[in-house]
Amino acid sequence: MATNWTTYRELLLPTAPGRRRGVETELRRAVRDGRLAPGTRLPSSRDLADQLGVARGTVTAAYEQLVGEGYLVAKRGSGTTVTAACTWPDSFPAEPPPTPRWRYDLRPGLPALNAFPREEWSQAQKSSLLDLPVDDLGYPDPAGYAPLRRELADYLGRVRAVAAGPSQVVVTNGAAEGLSLLGRTLRDAGHRTVAVEEPSHFGAAGMLASHGLEVLRVPVDDNGIQVDRLSTLDCRAVLVTAAHQFPLGVVLHPTRRHALLEWARGVDGLVIEDDYDAEHRYDRPATGAMQALDPTRVVHQGSTSKVLAPALRLGWLVLPSTLRDSVVERKRLDDLGTGTLPQAAFAHLLSSGGYDRHLRRTRHLYRTRRDALLSALAETLPAWHPIGVAAGLHVVVRLPPHTDDRSVQERLSHQGINALALSNYTTAPTFPALVLGYAALTPDRLRAAVRLMADTLTTP
Amino acid sequence: MATNWTTYRELLLPTAPGRRRGVETELRRAVRDGRLAPGTRLPSSRDLADQLGVARGTVTAAYEQLVGEGYLVAKRGSGTTVTAACTWPDSFPAEPPPTPRWRYDLRPGLPALNAFPREEWSQAQKSSLLDLPVDDLGYPDPAGYAPLRRELADYLGRVRAVAAGPSQVVVTNGAAEGLSLLGRTLRDAGHRTVAVEEPSHFGAAGMLASHGLEVLRVPVDDNGIQVDRLSTLDCRAVLVTAAHQFPLGVVLHPTRRHALLEWARGVDGLVIEDDYDAEHRYDRPATGAMQALDPTRVVHQGSTSKVLAPALRLGWLVLPSTLRDSVVERKRLDDLGTGTLPQAAFAHLLSSGGYDRHLRRTRHLYRTRRDALLSALAETLPAWHPIGVAAGLHVVVRLPPHTDDRSVQERLSHQGINALALSNYTTAPTFPALVLGYAALTPDRLRAAVRLMADTLTTP
Repeated sequence: MATNWTTYRELLLPTAPGRRRGVETELRRAVRDGRLAPGTRLPSSRDLADQLGVARGTVTAAYEQLVGEGYLVAKRGSGTTVTAACTWPDSFPAEPPPTPRWRYDLRPGLPALNAFPREEWSQAQKSSLLDLPVDDLGYPDPAGYAPLRRELADYLGRVRAVAAGPSQVVVTNGAAEGLSLLGRTLRDAGHRTVAVEEPSHFGAAGMLASHGLEVLRVPVDDNGIQVDRLSTLDCRAVLVTAAHQFPLGVVLHPTRRHALLEWARGVDGLVIEDDYDAEHRYDRPATGAMQALDPTRVVHQGSTSKVLAPALRLGWLVLPSTLRDSVVERKRLDDLGTGTLPQAAFAHLLSSGGYDRHLRRTRHLYRTRRDALLSALAETLPAWHPIGVAAGLHVVVRLPPHTDDRSVQERLSHQGINALALSNYTTAPTFPALVLGYAALTPDRLRAAVRLMADTLTTP
Repeated sequence: MATNWTTYRELLLPTAPGRRRGVETELRRAVRDGRLAPGTRLPSSRDLADQLGVARGTVTAAYEQLVGEGYLVAKRGSGTTVTAACTWPDSFPAEPPPTPRWRYDLRPGLPALNAFPREEWSQAQKSSLLDLPVDDLGYPDPAGYAPLRRELADYLGRVRAVAAGPSQVVVTNGAAEGLSLLGRTLRDAGHRTVAVEEPSHFGAAGMLASHGLEVLRVPVDDNGIQVDRLSTLDCRAVLVTAAHQFPLGVVLHPTRRHALLEWARGVDGLVIEDDYDAEHRYDRPATGAMQALDPTRVVHQGSTSKVLAPALRLGWLVLPSTLRDSVVERKRLDDLGTGTLPQAAFAHLLSSGGYDRHLRRTRHLYRTRRDALLSALAETLPAWHPIGVAAGLHVVVRLPPHTDDRSVQERLSHQGINALALSNYTTAPTFPALVLGYAALTPDRLRAAVRLMADTLTTP
């Protein structure tokens, strides 16, 4: 609120040339930052023009503009004054500082960001934009860009054995938005609760809870979610990671798959199959999606986050026809639909085979990294036992009994290692373990991380 | 459910070569489409391999895969059978047919899609992606990509006189998502009602209502929303189009601006300033945003939809600090944040001056189109009176008193002219008028549309 100016020339022409916009901008700024106090009577336009050495019209136009915007008040007979009752911000809050960087970041869920195929994506963006029909630049189809829905139906049928036509596919802003849309659609349809696996990703439960659903937890064993426990709950919807349980890494057993679908049919309910990283299986072909076992009871969801990059925020739902229209309507009322250009680029990458090529490359890359991590652990920390199938971007490693995994996490964090305890993913007591993501680190860095872990934990 | 096959060779090798994936895919398909009925006992792997002329391992692997997925059941002693209790879709619903094309589409709200700067946007996509720091390919900041928030704070300050730092800016999937986030944040904060202008865009009211807010309507006159009417309502939030009322085209009077802010302070309320097309003013510089008159009481929202293309789904909110964190948290729980790549491209277009250049081009283009439409109307339909300031992408044209504007719309639609009646935008009786969007049509086509309108309406 400094008022250290003595002439209007000094106040208004510190940087501005003699153009009208300059005077207007500087006047507005002077009102805002309090150098021109509320109630101040301004010189006549002729007088101010003389002082500034600009044309009178410049000042008249600036006054008129700022009167229109509400900064100044013009009253016949009493000239132009600064508006009395305004609240101007002194300054803007600073941006929060960036989060600290880890020496070894082993948190799960991130693919190798430097493996993102920039050149191919860039080419797909370019080609798809130049080929885009002009009408497709208008408001999007809230269900998703039709050519992408066709490509996705084909890809998911081919690679994940999903049974769906393009009209069952809905494109979302990442899998997260898919869950948000589903959560609210279920709530609007009368659901009050939804079950999730225990342990599971804390983010999903938080999202569902934020949309007004009570989240119930059903334990997972070596065969996946315990369907008999699910049956005892007052609940008609469940979120499962059938192909590769997150975080434990087990595959939902065929018998459990059928039991789960029988449960869904019995309670007139729904299974949400979160197929978050199923394309990454290293020892054999990935288990096909369970959606096709009963497309009327299973919602299949996926995204490009683990295959390409989370920054793309491209996901999809494959929906039973009973739900499809209400989810699309919810999407329309939320944001009118996902942006068309990234969808067109993704459709191009799928149709050109670039997505399959990228998957072949990263599957090899991640397998090598997984092998490096597991060998290093076997050699250096033989009391730690990796569990789960050879798949995905992370592995759960059981620690010796009676270890406190949170204190291990804490000790490692002091050495710059981000290695999350399994306890973070559950509300019930569980065996001690770490959830180690390996996709983003080279074999050398993984080996170095394991060495540092061993050194840290053996030193008292 | 045809079963017109006699040998497994015929069933499983219609297209498939001798690779394992071929047998597996064809088996899955045969189970799904009912050619292999539930309960069918399959040949032993040795037997089927002989029949198909493939290696036994191929069949064993296919059986194992499909057992894992739940299509087949393997029981020791009784061989492999098709799962009994599955629901397979007969076929997929067809895609809905495309909406019919208009001969002259004068609906408001669309910019000239063929003026979209494809080459510049393509270049911005490419440069920004190749320059993107690798960590920015991870999960986004739910508030928006920091470089874009900086560019937007600068642009909005410079062009719309908005007073905000980057931390007040939140990037959204179009203005629509901004409204959706705000609606739910207000509801969670205890708001039960929200006021909108009458007439106004029906989409906004529908969205707010879908998020559980009762929508109240406040009439607009030549000076904008009637703030004294607003004061009589049980309501603490209002959505206004201050710079260029939609659809009437009037500018909110300075006195009303201050009265509106006084109302907001008095009820501890909020003004949502939808700045949907303010950059398009043809007769003089656009009236600056009212946000800066009280940044603690005004949410400013905008998007690229009217300047570039709705397909981009890029919008923003400028938020009071009291609301900012809860809106960002709502955004995080909805979709974790908007995709980074289009944000980086947009930031590049802003910083390179490409956005300003595009605006200069389209401002000229739309002004020419507006002039052509108004001249043609003045000449051909002199009883119709355009109202509102010279701005935006549409004009409201008053029809002679006692005209039924909906029946005019109906008659024009039979000739392939999409010209919406003002009645579509209001629940209260209003004067008869059409809301004509002119941005997407060339002067020649606008003149032809006016001729056809005149011909249609003068023919009984």
